[in-house]
Amino acid sequence: MTQPKQMHFCGFLVAGPVVHSHAIWRNPAHETPFLSLAHYAGIARTLERGVFDFVFFADRLAIADRYGDSHEMGLRLGDQDATRMDPLPILGAMAAVTSRLGLGATRSTTYDAPFNVAREFATLDHISGGRAAWNVVTSMNDGEALNFGDVPHLSHDERYDRADEFMEVAFKLWDSWDDDALVLDRAAGVYADPSKVHYVNHRGKWFQSRGPLNIPHSPQGRPVVIQAGSSGRGKAFAARWTEVIFALQPNMTRMAAFTKDVRAALEAAGRAPDAAKVMMAVMPFVGATRAEAEAKRDLHDSLIDPRVGLSTLAAHANADFGALPLDAAVNEIADTGSQGNLAALRSIAGDGSMTIAEAGRIYGRGVMCPRLVGTAEDIADELIAIVDSGAADGFVVSPAFLPDTFDDFVDKVVPLLQARGRAAAAYGEGTLRDRLGLAGGRE
Amino acid sequence: MTQPKQMHFCGFLVAGPVVHSHAIWRNPAHETPFLSLAHYAGIARTLERGVFDFVFFADRLAIADRYGDSHEMGLRLGDQDATRMDPLPILGAMAAVTSRLGLGATRSTTYDAPFNVAREFATLDHISGGRAAWNVVTSMNDGEALNFGDVPHLSHDERYDRADEFMEVAFKLWDSWDDDALVLDRAAGVYADPSKVHYVNHRGKWFQSRGPLNIPHSPQGRPVVIQAGSSGRGKAFAARWTEVIFALQPNMTRMAAFTKDVRAALEAAGRAPDAAKVMMAVMPFVGATRAEAEAKRDLHDSLIDPRVGLSTLAAHANADFGALPLDAAVNEIADTGSQGNLAALRSIAGDGSMTIAEAGRIYGRGVMCPRLVGTAEDIADELIAIVDSGAADGFVVSPAFLPDTFDDFVDKVVPLLQARGRAAAAYGEGTLRDRLGLAGGRE
Repeated sequence: MTQPKQMHFCGFLVAGPVVHSHAIWRNPAHETPFLSLAHYAGIARTLERGVFDFVFFADRLAIADRYGDSHEMGLRLGDQDATRMDPLPILGAMAAVTSRLGLGATRSTTYDAPFNVAREFATLDHISGGRAAWNVVTSMNDGEALNFGDVPHLSHDERYDRADEFMEVAFKLWDSWDDDALVLDRAAGVYADPSKVHYVNHRGKWFQSRGPLNIPHSPQGRPVVIQAGSSGRGKAFAARWTEVIFALQPNMTRMAAFTKDVRAALEAAGRAPDAAKVMMAVMPFVGATRAEAEAKRDLHDSLIDPRVGLSTLAAHANADFGALPLDAAVNEIADTGSQGNLAALRSIAGDGSMTIAEAGRIYGRGVMCPRLVGTAEDIADELIAIVDSGAADGFVVSPAFLPDTFDDFVDKVVPLLQARGRAAAAYGEGTLRDRLGLAGGRE
Repeated sequence: MTQPKQMHFCGFLVAGPVVHSHAIWRNPAHETPFLSLAHYAGIARTLERGVFDFVFFADRLAIADRYGDSHEMGLRLGDQDATRMDPLPILGAMAAVTSRLGLGATRSTTYDAPFNVAREFATLDHISGGRAAWNVVTSMNDGEALNFGDVPHLSHDERYDRADEFMEVAFKLWDSWDDDALVLDRAAGVYADPSKVHYVNHRGKWFQSRGPLNIPHSPQGRPVVIQAGSSGRGKAFAARWTEVIFALQPNMTRMAAFTKDVRAALEAAGRAPDAAKVMMAVMPFVGATRAEAEAKRDLHDSLIDPRVGLSTLAAHANADFGALPLDAAVNEIADTGSQGNLAALRSIAGDGSMTIAEAGRIYGRGVMCPRLVGTAEDIADELIAIVDSGAADGFVVSPAFLPDTFDDFVDKVVPLLQARGRAAAAYGEGTLRDRLGLAGGRE
């Protein structure tokens, strides 16, 4: 008799007032102290209580100012880029208040140096005892480019070429100390075996780095590599490097199609089809009854100004929707731009009869993250159905309010899944990579 | 009646096996788990118990391989650069286990971007409630340059020119949000006042950055800026920017001369002569009797291989001493090099009659950090004498063993100083900058 498949969980965060939901900081029930350590420490403890595999911080390197060619609307209403603190010091704090929870964050391959990023994650992996994960992004926004120089932003394909080489350098640096290079013979005074620490002598198109890293081999060897599902060149990048894939798909059919594509891409890249775990974003609203859950969702949605969603959408699409009339139907708008910048709006609008305002409200309430609304039993059933259909290996739980959503999910949904053998009842031994069932931390 | 002057304290660390003392990891009494979070968390708690103003991590971005043109000796024996983890995630962890202790670390202006560094310290300042400090370094080693590219390492003066502009950009970014820009009106849905968040539009010789930072104004506005005493162009840099100056001087006469120079340089730069606090490195060996303290020191010193000191000295002087015979007297060595690379050795050797090995041993035992050896009363008296002579505002306590030195100092020396009104008995209100008596966090 085979064991039912256990699902994996990640708690999704941004170190700011907003995550996918733009209502978070407007929670009528209490303040959301998103600049304070206590806020993040409490969330980390809750996720660990729920035996989540890891917590994760998305990041971006600029406020948004595509909407109306200004940062005014995004800052006034609090869009997704209005504030983002640096996740790495916060993950250090979370490492101190937990002992098993994995710790993941975004770092850009376009606006950082491989030696610095390799050091940060090697350090996090050491101090956390093998719990580090890195979401690799190439940073697509004009605003980010402008904060780091006035060179033209790299093209999409160039960014991924650079990212490929960035990964090569980082992997070489993480591998520059053999597992057994540290000797630590205190009596004889032998710290390390120099023959087991290697120059990497990388000389490529984008980077030169001699190495070795000045940090010994960490418990995982290197962080778990995360990627978000993306376009052509990005898919090739993911197929080569990724170990966890985040995706945001609106329903089970699309989730299944996405995951099938991922498996095929992994095989095409010469890897096992399940070499990477696929984790789907969901935003749960848990109620004692369905009506209560729906009321929670409706309250949440009532806090969304359409323009805050449009501001974030403009940043995500790297396009300006500020001139569009809010009360016009999406399919009434003529696509005059050569950038195809209406595609993002149209993908929200379905048949196109909804207004620009309605599309903005939908985007602001959760950046298209599907919502699971019901009793804990309803939500547990739905998660199990998704995993059993092969559409996902686990879920990225995206909060509607903080810490409310995680409290509800951990206290009400997780115990049901654990009772049915579908979520881990306790952490097993080993590193984050071990718990995710991934291959070793070496090439 | 004037109050006696209270002295400031910093606990000095490297995130590795060695600090100034190269004996730390060889402690015969117990292991020193320098890769683990518990090690750093315990130290942070001890320093906070001792009402230290802050903890500080020195950093460098490469293993050392100047000695014998190889990293062999430094890695085998464990020199000061054999391992250095990234301090920022560790400071995040320390923020989580303390509530008042200041948190400082080195970041390089040569191998990082102002936007990234500004974000890291703004984040640390937020999550710690105003406790962040940044030691600004320009990174002088060839090995560091080689990890970040194969461009020629910048000249000394170029590095400081770049550092000046780096600071200008970072300060502009920290000032890009007015203090009252955050509105957080949850009912009305107003996050911030966009008219109080400013583009910085920096376009200089080394950097372009548009800003604003994507992080609101932090409790201190910006981290406390630390500098280590240095050479000509470095002194001008320090006079302009620094708020805390670290110095390593062998005795009270030299400490007094150094501090007098600093005061004059600050005045010459148009600042108050006491606008920056001068903190002198000391390595205490505390015993119940002087004989016990001397025995501790002698045990410590017996653990130093001369070559480990020479390896670190070679890195610090960016020069190779590997070909010099260990048993030759320093003043027998002919200075054939044009780099004057013997100056560093000669500065250790006094009249020059000591051997190369003896000089290496001296350097390895504490990088010329003066040692205070005696009873707690002896050491308290000496610290008071230094401060009363005007030779320092406080001390950088450098450990001989970890956590032993900090345990001894906090449990035995600090209470005497507190009883005599010369060390703070408890933390006052406010930020790290407030406690150090520095001016506000804005220009």
